[in-house]
Amino acid sequence: MSFQINENEVDIIIGALRPDLTAFMEAWRAFFSKFHLIVIKDPDMKEELKIPQGFDHKIYTKSDMEKIIGTTSINFSGHSCRYFGYLVSSKKYIISIDDNCFPAHDPNNNITDAVAQHLTNLQTPATPFFFNTLYDPYTKGADFVRGYPFSLRVGVDCALSCGLWLNIADYDAPTQIVKPRERNTRYVDAVLTVPLQTMMPASGINLGFNRELIGPALIPGFRLAGEGKVRWETMEDIWCGMCAKIVCDHLKLGVKSGLPYVHRGIEGGDNAMESLKKEWEGVKLMEEIVPFFQSVRLPRTAVTAEDCVVEMAKMVKEKLGVVNPVFGRAADAMEEWVRLWKAVGSQKI
Amino acid sequence: MSFQINENEVDIIIGALRPDLTAFMEAWRAFFSKFHLIVIKDPDMKEELKIPQGFDHKIYTKSDMEKIIGTTSINFSGHSCRYFGYLVSSKKYIISIDDNCFPAHDPNNNITDAVAQHLTNLQTPATPFFFNTLYDPYTKGADFVRGYPFSLRVGVDCALSCGLWLNIADYDAPTQIVKPRERNTRYVDAVLTVPLQTMMPASGINLGFNRELIGPALIPGFRLAGEGKVRWETMEDIWCGMCAKIVCDHLKLGVKSGLPYVHRGIEGGDNAMESLKKEWEGVKLMEEIVPFFQSVRLPRTAVTAEDCVVEMAKMVKEKLGVVNPVFGRAADAMEEWVRLWKAVGSQKI
Repeated sequence: MSFQINENEVDIIIGALRPDLTAFMEAWRAFFSKFHLIVIKDPDMKEELKIPQGFDHKIYTKSDMEKIIGTTSINFSGHSCRYFGYLVSSKKYIISIDDNCFPAHDPNNNITDAVAQHLTNLQTPATPFFFNTLYDPYTKGADFVRGYPFSLRVGVDCALSCGLWLNIADYDAPTQIVKPRERNTRYVDAVLTVPLQTMMPASGINLGFNRELIGPALIPGFRLAGEGKVRWETMEDIWCGMCAKIVCDHLKLGVKSGLPYVHRGIEGGDNAMESLKKEWEGVKLMEEIVPFFQSVRLPRTAVTAEDCVVEMAKMVKEKLGVVNPVFGRAADAMEEWVRLWKAVGSQKI
Repeated sequence: MSFQINENEVDIIIGALRPDLTAFMEAWRAFFSKFHLIVIKDPDMKEELKIPQGFDHKIYTKSDMEKIIGTTSINFSGHSCRYFGYLVSSKKYIISIDDNCFPAHDPNNNITDAVAQHLTNLQTPATPFFFNTLYDPYTKGADFVRGYPFSLRVGVDCALSCGLWLNIADYDAPTQIVKPRERNTRYVDAVLTVPLQTMMPASGINLGFNRELIGPALIPGFRLAGEGKVRWETMEDIWCGMCAKIVCDHLKLGVKSGLPYVHRGIEGGDNAMESLKKEWEGVKLMEEIVPFFQSVRLPRTAVTAEDCVVEMAKMVKEKLGVVNPVFGRAADAMEEWVRLWKAVGSQKI
């Protein structure tokens, strides 16, 4: 990747759920050290944060949150703390990586630079209107396959880059219980555009996005009661990803999935069975959520990510609010998020 | 792949465009020899066909075509000869591989069995209604990602398996001219379901399908004037693939793309520039074809692949026939194809 990266356009956001980030930061030093880091300390965490020397970083704590946004109904605890970083960043690109992830190795045992790959994904066009069987046509050595219409080859801006995981794949609690020893060792050397109107579950573990294009669509809107601190208990990123995909489809922006991989460590010990009690609620709710998102069509008057989120919030309230009160709360959080986005945005200016 | 393959359910179809198939057949011996082969000799080829000993095969020539189907407006010359094999087969699964392709090696330099991989793709479910970021969830070591709705995990029958190409990728003539030395060396170790309502260009080079489910949808319907004998001059398989995708979407069947790879030899020497003159017409027509196929919605009364093709033929005539007479001829060929399919099918009984 011979990409021109402007370091000043990038924030790396780390939601710190563990007090000692030393091993995590050291593992990423070669790839993180040229960028600015925003570290958000989980507001529920009492311990002091340990970060090694030599990183250009700023830490935000619970008291910073209160100072900057005052009272809000949005809950930034656990994995949701990262969203506070999205709010306070003023950069074009955001890369967000969970603090239990490490740089992955490719099949030739070369260490891979997840940050550079996300930026490449975001800076090359996406092709959501027709499927290229040769995967990413903008990768070195690849192109569009015979039969791909030339008018669609210019593509559209890519707004969201969803990376993947080696070692511990991102399974839900039931799958984790069924396959406790399964490890993902398959390195699929591909990036592809998720087609228009195809819904997918984005994960918050390893993600890049263009904040200027779709920032407000990355929403910590949906929380189960007592949502936990291990990934398989969380629904916030699944909901957030579907909101973002809807917004991208509507605004004619692209979403990519595939490279980069990160190596993901053991998640939350042996608690999958415990977690299942919490997540089972989420698993059931997905059966309502997916048909809803598949049916959403936004009005032409929605021309920004903020507009789109406000319109979606209305639809969530109207169509899903009657099914379960959790959706009413999600709709409220979506509206509140747009309010916060605008308020914090105007402070930056 | 610990798959139960019933050899009697499979025909391998070889469209013979070269008289000497010795090197081709010897390269594939380990993978072809347990199956029945149908070899269709390009009706334009004058030379005697050379096939090595030890294969259970049947050759069909121009005179067999005349005997079996009599007079028809469908042109079986060049790459289209393979479609005659689809017509006379009575097996459930068809695997079709161009005679300039050889078994591919994976990154560990193991030779790969394209036939077995196509059959695995066709015998495991497809998941067109929601995107799994972990690729094929039915592959060993993989599963559905967190957030994938459980109700959609059972999937649907897979009807079409589109394989890929190492060495010479399947580019069109303009791309081939721009990148004459480019070789595809990227082995992407993945199979994925092409999502519902996402159109893609299927290639006839390396293909498997379930003949019982969608046989009549694999149509040699669309031919440019003077369509050639090198792939980049052909449009028949691109049109055919879009018809098949529409039928699969309508009948709630799946289409997969990815593995198996084949190693593809040099195509037609240095004639890309010559070919461009012919294919340029196809390149321009794709700009009409793609929006048309993206807009096709079949009526509920169409419940078989034959029904779907007849309905599509009507739409092609009505909507595209006015644009260019080549589409009127394609519509006629689609109707004729269904007639032939039924006629040859009743002979089999």
